[in-house]
Parts: sequence; C-alpha cells; structure tokens
Amino acid sequence: MLRVGVIGVGAMGTQHFLRLMNVIHDATVTAVSDVFADHAKEVIAPYPGVRFIADPIELIRDPEVDAIVIVSADKTHEEFCLEALKQGKYIFCEKPLSASAAGAKGVVDAEIAGGKRLIQLGFNRRFDPAYKELKEIIVSGKLGAPLVAHCAHRNANYPAQYDDVVAVTGTAIHEIDTMAWLCGDYFTKAQVIFPKTSRHSKNENLHDPQIVLLTTSSGMVVTAEIWVNCQYAYDIRCEVLCEDGTATLPRHARVDVCTANTHYTGMTSDGLGFFAEAYNIEFQAWVDACNAGTYCKEAASAWDGYCAAVTTDSCLKSQKSGLIEAVPLTDRPDFYKD
Amino acid sequence: MLRVGVIGVGAMGTQHFLRLMNVIHDATVTAVSDVFADHAKEVIAPYPGVRFIADPIELIRDPEVDAIVIVSADKTHEEFCLEALKQGKYIFCEKPLSASAAGAKGVVDAEIAGGKRLIQLGFNRRFDPAYKELKEIIVSGKLGAPLVAHCAHRNANYPAQYDDVVAVTGTAIHEIDTMAWLCGDYFTKAQVIFPKTSRHSKNENLHDPQIVLLTTSSGMVVTAEIWVNCQYAYDIRCEVLCEDGTATLPRHARVDVCTANTHYTGMTSDGLGFFAEAYNIEFQAWVDACNAGTYCKEAASAWDGYCAAVTTDSCLKSQKSGLIEAVPLTDRPDFYKD
Amino acid sequence: MLRVGVIGVGAMGTQHFLRLMNVIHDATVTAVSDVFADHAKEVIAPYPGVRFIADPIELIRDPEVDAIVIVSADKTHEEFCLEALKQGKYIFCEKPLSASAAGAKGVVDAEIAGGKRLIQLGFNRRFDPAYKELKEIIVSGKLGAPLVAHCAHRNANYPAQYDDVVAVTGTAIHEIDTMAWLCGDYFTKAQVIFPKTSRHSKNENLHDPQIVLLTTSSGMVVTAEIWVNCQYAYDIRCEVLCEDGTATLPRHARVDVCTANTHYTGMTSDGLGFFAEAYNIEFQAWVDACNAGTYCKEAASAWDGYCAAVTTDSCLKSQKSGLIEAVPLTDRPDFYKD
Amino acid sequence: MLRVGVIGVGAMGTQHFLRLMNVIHDATVTAVSDVFADHAKEVIAPYPGVRFIADPIELIRDPEVDAIVIVSADKTHEEFCLEALKQGKYIFCEKPLSASAAGAKGVVDAEIAGGKRLIQLGFNRRFDPAYKELKEIIVSGKLGAPLVAHCAHRNANYPAQYDDVVAVTGTAIHEIDTMAWLCGDYFTKAQVIFPKTSRHSKNENLHDPQIVLLTTSSGMVVTAEIWVNCQYAYDIRCEVLCEDGTATLPRHARVDVCTANTHYTGMTSDGLGFFAEAYNIEFQAWVDACNAGTYCKEAASAWDGYCAAVTTDSCLKSQKSGLIEAVPLTDRPDFYKD
Repeated sequence: MLRVGVIGVGAMGTQHFLRLMNVIHDATVTAVSDVFADHAKEVIAPYPGVRFIADPIELIRDPEVDAIVIVSADKTHEEFCLEALKQGKYIFCEKPLSASAAGAKGVVDAEIAGGKRLIQLGFNRRFDPAYKELKEIIVSGKLGAPLVAHCAHRNANYPAQYDDVVAVTGTAIHEIDTMAWLCGDYFTKAQVIFPKTSRHSKNENLHDPQIVLLTTSSGMVVTAEIWVNCQYAYDIRCEVLCEDGTATLPRHARVDVCTANTHYTGMTSDGLGFFAEAYNIEFQAWVDACNAGTYCKEAASAWDGYCAAVTTDSCLKSQKSGLIEAVPLTDRPDFYKD
Repeated sequence: MLRVGVIGVGAMGTQHFLRLMNVIHDATVTAVSDVFADHAKEVIAPYPGVRFIADPIELIRDPEVDAIVIVSADKTHEEFCLEALKQGKYIFCEKPLSASAAGAKGVVDAEIAGGKRLIQLGFNRRFDPAYKELKEIIVSGKLGAPLVAHCAHRNANYPAQYDDVVAVTGTAIHEIDTMAWLCGDYFTKAQVIFPKTSRHSKNENLHDPQIVLLTTSSGMVVTAEIWVNCQYAYDIRCEVLCEDGTATLPRHARVDVCTANTHYTGMTSDGLGFFAEAYNIEFQAWVDACNAGTYCKEAASAWDGYCAAVTTDSCLKSQKSGLIEAVPLTDRPDFYKD
Repeated sequence: MLRVGVIGVGAMGTQHFLRLMNVIHDATVTAVSDVFADHAKEVIAPYPGVRFIADPIELIRDPEVDAIVIVSADKTHEEFCLEALKQGKYIFCEKPLSASAAGAKGVVDAEIAGGKRLIQLGFNRRFDPAYKELKEIIVSGKLGAPLVAHCAHRNANYPAQYDDVVAVTGTAIHEIDTMAWLCGDYFTKAQVIFPKTSRHSKNENLHDPQIVLLTTSSGMVVTAEIWVNCQYAYDIRCEVLCEDGTATLPRHARVDVCTANTHYTGMTSDGLGFFAEAYNIEFQAWVDACNAGTYCKEAASAWDGYCAAVTTDSCLKSQKSGLIEAVPLTDRPDFYKD
Repeated sequence: MLRVGVIGVGAMGTQHFLRLMNVIHDATVTAVSDVFADHAKEVIAPYPGVRFIADPIELIRDPEVDAIVIVSADKTHEEFCLEALKQGKYIFCEKPLSASAAGAKGVVDAEIAGGKRLIQLGFNRRFDPAYKELKEIIVSGKLGAPLVAHCAHRNANYPAQYDDVVAVTGTAIHEIDTMAWLCGDYFTKAQVIFPKTSRHSKNENLHDPQIVLLTTSSGMVVTAEIWVNCQYAYDIRCEVLCEDGTATLPRHARVDVCTANTHYTGMTSDGLGFFAEAYNIEFQAWVDACNAGTYCKEAASAWDGYCAAVTTDSCLKSQKSGLIEAVPLTDRPDFYKD
C-alpha cells in the first residue's frame, strides 16, 4: 500500500486525490497540502485518514509519506522535486518539470546524482488507449517511416490567466512531449506563427489560435495548432504521415443522432474528463512501479520533462522573434534510456 | 437523336422532362401530355420545339415520337405501356408497371408476344453509384454468400394521399426491386409488421413506420423498414450480411461542422435530389440503348416490374392478414435473361 | 469491505474474480468454487487470502462470505440463487436467472417472500456508457416516442456447443433485456425467423444468423439480429427510431489508417473485452450497493431476469412453430418498481 | 452551340475533349491541336466533325472556333491566351495562367486593355459541391470569422518530371487559389518547409512532402501540405477554423465493408476522376456564359490566375531561402470585381 502525499488540490489535484482514494489500487493518500487550507480541508473531509499539512516541504519529509504527487503551481514544481529527490521519495510531477529549461536541467542533474530514477512526469497521453494504438501502428513500421504529424490542441475556453507563455508551457507542451514520445525523437527547431486572433481571446497577451512548427533531429516536421478558445469543445487531433500511409486519432465514440435535416454527435468541453481513462491508467502504472521499487518505463521521465522545457523555451523565443529558432537538445543520456 | 414523348409532368415528370432537354445527350422531347394542360404548357413554354398533346394515346402514336416516358398516375401505366408496345415504341415507365400483378403479367405477355424488349422500368437505384459499388462487392464473392439484408427507406414527410397501399406499391417497391437486383434472386415469402404508429402519421389509413420481411428463393431474408414520416430527412440505408463480412451503403458526403459541443453533418429532405445522379445515368443509359436499337441490360425489365408487382401484392395481403404470405413467383423466362 | 464468494471461474468468471481483486474498490474475494478444482486453484494461487471451497452450497453458507457472484453453468443459477436468498446474502447472478421461465418465477417469489431485494442480474449493457447515452437521449423525449429499434448482436465465432437454444437464452437475451430497459417496457409478442444459414455454422442445430422480432406492450417493435459466426468481429448495433429522429450506438473509437487505396479501422473479436468498462462499472455499483445495505437501482433485478426468461421461452417456441408467439408478461409488481 | 477549339489532348485534355463532346450541352469541339499529331488524330477519330489543326495559333484564329480550351504545356499558356485575347475569343485556360507572375501580369493587362473579360481559369474546385458547401458555411458567418485553414493535397504517385517547382506551380497552386476564393482574400506572406523526404520521392529535386504556410491580408493563416507520393490514394483535405467552430471537407461516400477484424472504405488514386463532377459543372458554366456573351462569376478570372502566380513565385523563393517571403499583391482591380 503506497502512502501518497498530494501537494495542490485545485481542479486537477482534487481529481488526482479522489482517483488515488477511489479508483487506484494499492495506494492511499495520507497527507495533503495546499496554499488554500480551507479548500484543502473540505476536499479531505470525507476521508478521516488523510492529514492536512500546511507546509509542502514538511509533507514531503513526513515519514508516513512514501511518494509525492505534485499538482501545485507550475513555478513550485522544481523546488518540490528537488526536496523529494533529497528525501529519496517517489515523485509524480504534473508538467512542467520546471518553469525554465535551466531549472529542469537542475532537477535532472539531481536525479542522476542520486543514482535512482524517482520522477515520473504527468504526461498522461502516453497512457491514452487511442494514442497508444497510434504509436503501435507507427512503431510497427507497416506504414513506413513517419515524415510529418499534424496535431491540434483545442480547449473550449481559456481560464482568465492564459497568455502566450502558458499557451506554450501549459498547452503546446502536451503536443511536444506526445510527439517526441510517439516518434522516439527530440526537436531541433521550433517556430511559432500567429494567425488572426479570435474575438474570443479577450486577453491581449494571448494570440489565439497559434501554430507551432517543430522539426525533429531526423527531419520530421510537426505542425501543432494551439487553440484554447475554440468554443465548440475540447478537441485533440493527431494525424501522422508515414511513407506508405497515415494514421489518425479517432474522435471519442458517442451516439449519433439524426434529426432536423442533420445528423450530429455530442462532444465534451471537459478536458480532464476527456482523458480520465488515461489518468487512471497513468496513476495505476505509477503506483505499481513505486510499490515494485522501480519506475514506469512507459511514463515520461525527468529527462522528457527537460526536453519539453528546452523546446518550450525555443517556442517562447520564436513567439518574440517571429523566426525559426534552434532547440539546443542532444541525445538521451544512458541514465534515461529504456 | 431520340425523339421522346413524356406523359405526365408532375414533380418527377417535370424533372425528367428538364433532364432530357438539358442533361441527357442524343435525345430531345418532342411532345408532352398531362391531364393538367395549363401546367404542362407552362413547363414546356421555354422550349418552343415541344408540342403539347392532350391525349396520351395520341402522343404515343405520334410519328415524331420514337420513345415514351411514362410518369403519369400509377393506374395508367399499364394502358400506356400496352399501347406503346402495340406501336413498337421504346418505353421508359416509372414504377409500378401496373397497379396489380395481373395487369403487370398482361404487359409482360404483350412484350413477349411482340418479340422485342421495349420496356425499361424506372428503378433508378440500379444506376446509383453507391448501390452499384455495393452490388459489385456482393457479386465479387469476396465476402461469401449473402444471407440477410437490412434496408430502410425513410422520407421526411408523406404527401396527404399516402396510405398503407402506397407505402407498399410506391415505397417498399423500391426496396423489393433493389434487393432482387442486388441478390440476383426473387422473393417467395412476404410479411408486413405494424409497429406503434408515429404521431406524424395523421392519415388513419397509414401505419408508419412499418416493417416488411421478405425471403428469397435461396433463403436470404430482407428486412425493409418503410417510414415515410421520419421527419429528419430523406434517408436510405442498406446493409448486406454475407458469410464473411458485411457491406453498407454510405451516407452522402457532406461537410462536417464542429460547433456548440457537437459535430454535425447536413442531410437532405429532397428524395428526387438525393438520387439525381442515378436518374441522369439511368436516362442516358436508356437513350443510348434506344438509339442503338436495343435495351439496357443494367436496367429493370418488364419482368422485374412484374416480380415487384407480385411481391407487393403479397405484402398488401400480409398487411391485412398479419401472416407470412407466399409470393407466387417462378424463375425468370429466357426472354428476360441477361 | 465486501467479502465475496465466486462460483464458477471459467473465462468470464475468472475475469470477474480478477476484476474484484484488482479493479473494484471496497470488495475482496474470500472464497471460490468451481467444478474444475485444479483450474480454480490455479486461478486463485496468486491470491493467498482466497480459499477454494469445492461445494458451492457450502461456499454460499460460509460465514466469511457476504455476497455471492454466480458465473457457473446456466442450469445451476436457480439453485444457487435460492440458497443465497435463504442465507440472506447479496447475489450477483450472471444471466440467465434460470434455465426456464417457471424456474425464474420461483426465484422471484422467493425473493419477494424474503422481503428484501438481494439479487442483481448481470446484464452489463445497462452500465455501458454508450448504451447509457442512448437511453438518456430516448428518455429525454427530445426525439419523441420510440417506435422501432433495430439491434444486431454479432460474435466472430461461436463456441462448439452453441445451438438455437443458446442463440436465444445466451445471446438474444442481451437484446431482450437491454431493449426492455431502454424502452421501459416489456414484450408481448415474439417471432423468430431463420434466413439462409452461413456455411460457418457447422453445427446443424444452429441456424445462423437468425432474426428475432419482438413487440412491446405499447406496440414498439424490436428487430434483433443474432449472428454468432459473423467472422469479422464482435459487433453490437442498436438504432432506435423515435417520432422525430433516430439515435444510434457508435462503433468503438479506433485509429483510422489510410493505406493501399483504402482507409480502415480495427475492430475486436473479444466480446468480454468489448464491454470491459461496463463490467467494471456494473461490479462497482453492485459492491457499493451491497456495502450500503441496499440494491443498485440501475441494475437488472430478479424480475428483469424473469421477464427475459419468459420472453426467451416464447422465442424458443417460435423457433419451432415459425409463428408469432405471445409473451405472457404483466406489469411490474410494486416490489420491483423503482 | 459554342464551337470550341481544344489545344492539348494529353490525359486531362482528352478528358476535357470527351466531356465537351459527350457531357456538356450547347457546345461542340470543332478543332483540336496537339504537338503529338498522331495521338491527337486517334483521340478525334470517332468524331468525324472535328478537324486536326497542327498549328495552335492557326486553331485560335480559325473562323469555326468561337472559344479556346488551353490544356497544353504550362509554358505555352501565356502565348495562347494573348493570341486568343487578340482574336476576341473566349478562353478556358487550365492553370497556371503563365509560368511566371510577370507573364501573368501581361495577360491581365492585355485583357483589361481589350475591355472584356474573356478568360476563365481552370480552377475546378470552385465548382466542387463539397467545396461549395464549405464556402457557403464560412460565408454565412454562422461560425464567425475564419482564422486558420488546414489543407492537404495528396497524390498517390507523382509523374517522373515532378520537382519542387511543379510541387508549387502545379499542385500547391490549387490550394492557393481555392483558399483565396474560399476566404475572399489574397496572400501577403509565404513560407515553405521541407520535412524529411519520403523514400518514394525518387527524384532528388523533389522534397516530398512539403508544407506551405500562407498568410492572407487579413491575417488568416493557411497550412497547406503538399504530398505527391503519399502512395495510399488521391486525398484532398480542408478544415477551416472559425471563431465559433470549424468546417471540414468530407471524404467521398463509399461503401463501408466489415471483414477480418476491420471495417474499411475504398479510396481512389484517380485525381481527375475524383473531381469529375466539378469539371463537368465548371465546363457547363463556362459554355453557358460564353453562349450568353458574358463570363462566369463563380469561376477564376485572369486576375485570380495572376494572384496565384505571384503567390507561387514567393513560395519558390522561400523554397530556396528557407525564410518567410512577402507576396507582393494588392487589392483586386475594379475590372475583376464581382
């Protein structure tokens, strides 16, 4: 029974907490921390076995906590990871690993120095059945080598604080990690294009939609459209072009209705719900690996988090320069192979 | 240049007239007849070369008419066919061949007696590209022998005069001929089932929807749903179950729109428009055959019209008896083979 | 923590056992029984807390067993249900409730006599997200009253013992319960039609496919195609025709591949896998209800099992008579309302 | 009856010739020219009324030719257009209008000088029913302003002579004109990206696929993937992102087959066949306009051909520079408005 401490019980953190209590086997949450103490206490109220610990560092060090789930504000991830590494505890850290590539490098170095892989990054799509089927088809080679991928990440509505930086570090980062994983490669060039902005982008610091263009070390090109106010639904698209054919992510299966000279199918606006199954599989895989004293090979590592951070840094640079920017990445170190 | 006389310029007849004038090559309409003289004269007004002839028999006998298109009231088809056969003229007759199986038999006998195949029945789906693709797949044998077919014929709204008789002789007849053609077989048993009637069926003589069950001489079963007030659109479905797989008619290709938590595709309520391409191909094939002094092998013959009439007779009987009724058909005579 | 005893660990029983051990919360299996002792012991070997009890009656009476899961041979269900009712234990019984309508009536009477609803029938589709969406749309009334439903139940290949009886009591029974649940009605007439039999139906006692026609008390008609050797995949279809439109179950979402002048999507032949999510939701709902000392309102009751048995009896009669047979059912007793 | 002279009877020219003889009303071909005299004579052999004229300039000047169809080599289009303008004859010119923007400007200037719009450019998609439905949805404004469009132009296999220049002037040019038409705008920036090249691109002067990025004067961005060796089929994609939703071109409707754990739908490799209906509508519209002494407003004009040429020039420049290049276009002159 893995004893988990959760830092951050906002919308996503609360879901992860409930998931660990009600869905995931062989794990239980023993402690929770959050800057909003009252809210956190409400969340844990129905679960008398869970303690509230105001100070997240204290939570990380608590002897009844074997493993840490970090779902707090992006800028805190780095510090909590470093502390948890110091304590030798298992870490599930939601993306990003750090707010900067330099910070992410520091975490990677600390993990390597510790000699044990303790960090799993929360890139949930690696556990989504549709993405897994897509990857299997690509990796099987039956369609030949992948050449191009077209991705789209669409949210119905953006939260007030969204700006061009979060569009990259909070949203495009999913496409970046997913495509690096799917293609087994890393990016060497990045470019961001700003089309006409939607009237629904009330925030003047947000260009929406925007198009991210990425090139891998082998020359594959990924076009990733980021559109966080698409209004119509949460929608994730991916088509991979291989030498002998293409493979495309399906829409979710929903009832088809014929009425009024039309046939239609419902879509959801709930992004967390959209990938609920992926989250469940991801957490169970993490818990199983921790209980086995190892790490989950299917999951994203600290190195993957670092690669994503370097790539998003280059995207941010291109947003300002309007140019194609280099992504200064190198081959995966042995510590993170396999 | 085939000189055509058109009898009946109601909704469908007018479309056929315009089709012959504007779309079909190597044919022109020289005369038109209709019980509504004023309307007919309006239809032909823009075409000064077309004469109005009040008496359809006179039109059939007119020396400037080589071929007759019969789109008049169902009960008149038999008489006009017999007269045109007598005159040795080519005939395109919309279904049904006759209002009764006995009447249809009379036309078949007259055609055989004349020694030349002059009649093409207007079963347009035999020329529809989707149905043709469906038939090719079945006939190819790559899915094994056909065992069952599920059909649905849905109209958005029925005209006032529709009742249980027309549901069979005007609507189900399409499924009957199409499936006989597709399976290369004829029917031996028929049964009609009346489910709960839709509130949109204002006519108390119409059960809507109704389900027609047909068995072929080889044992294949066809379930044909007839629903002429489905409200939502004109919709034609067909799935054929073969021993090693199934083949299904597609929906028409239309733009897919994502909006308001849904994605939808438009459908049409216009049945004549739905099969416009099939009608064009059908008429060109007829004109080409007439001009070549022969008949179109892909088209329905008088014999097919007779088979349909015998089958609809049995359906009408089952509507009243509630029982499985025999369909008294036999193998195709040599005159109508190939 | 609900202590469960599982009777029967064949293919499906083993899945249920593993589900209860690894997926379902707040339940654990304490005892297992099976006529094949060696196999059962293998299944439970990795779980040292689980005892093997050779005699199922002894298992039912065991003090460390609070609730019974019956996945043994169909003919044993009735006896085990009666014993478990006598012991006042919770029961999850896979369909059918009994091999005969009379037997099912005995179980219903025993449950009513006991005064507490203890039986949940294993009709898993009631918990399938797609069927639930379908039902919500129908129940919402936005498409008007339901009139007809077209269902298809297709298995890729039938086990050797499949015959016409099992086609009804093992396969059609799913369509029967599902449609009764979806329409909130019961059946009054049943008819079975035998089309041409597939060459893949090696068993001479199996007509495959066959078509079951059912009429509800309100006049709705259900056409249910049963095809257990369709070869191509496990495939479940359902379209409900309402006065103002139709609603159709979707195919599972799978990657779409374009290659070699085609685009294709994979399908599965694994029926248990197809509904895995429904099974998980169903079992968790059962466990939660038992732990709360009540029964699950969404689930099928003993009465639903009885209704299904009466309906399948009439189908079996029609298979022999070739006629439309009455289904002698009446309104739901108060004990089973809500 | 419009008397047409056809210059060029290669694959596409022969189809246009046959279309004019057999499908299009109120037109006939009176003369044909081609550098391969023997082949041309074979093509016209079944049509004794058609003369072969070796010299295309002579054909243009022929008194029995009212209108010219130019389907000859790209580099000849400009010269033949200028001559036909001089003769005051109607012109249907396949794209491109000229091999260079400067040449296209000369043709535009000559047409303006002549004072009458005589040229229709052969951008057939403007007449494709699916594209027309797509444009109607965008223009209706019900989805808000268009912001981005994702296009893909895929051919199964490229002819031997295809290189990076033709990828732009022969293929991307379709996306350029179509999107300018669909958005009612012109392009101001162009960029071409070379991903990893497919092994099927045997020609070392062809990067395949490539991605063309275009920005319109209003800021809309078009991503146009050009892939002329995609192997799997001829495939044209287009999704337009508007502020309140998206609209996507459908695939062609084809029979859906379930077999062998898959369901699949056929696709075609025949690009000319893919758009056959669009070609027919386009030519009929041209013939009707010529016969009415005017021009077809739905069709592409010489100005549209000029815009396309300027845009392709910038794409060619970007292929070499790897940079975002300006597209030096201005607003549409009054002569070409409406």
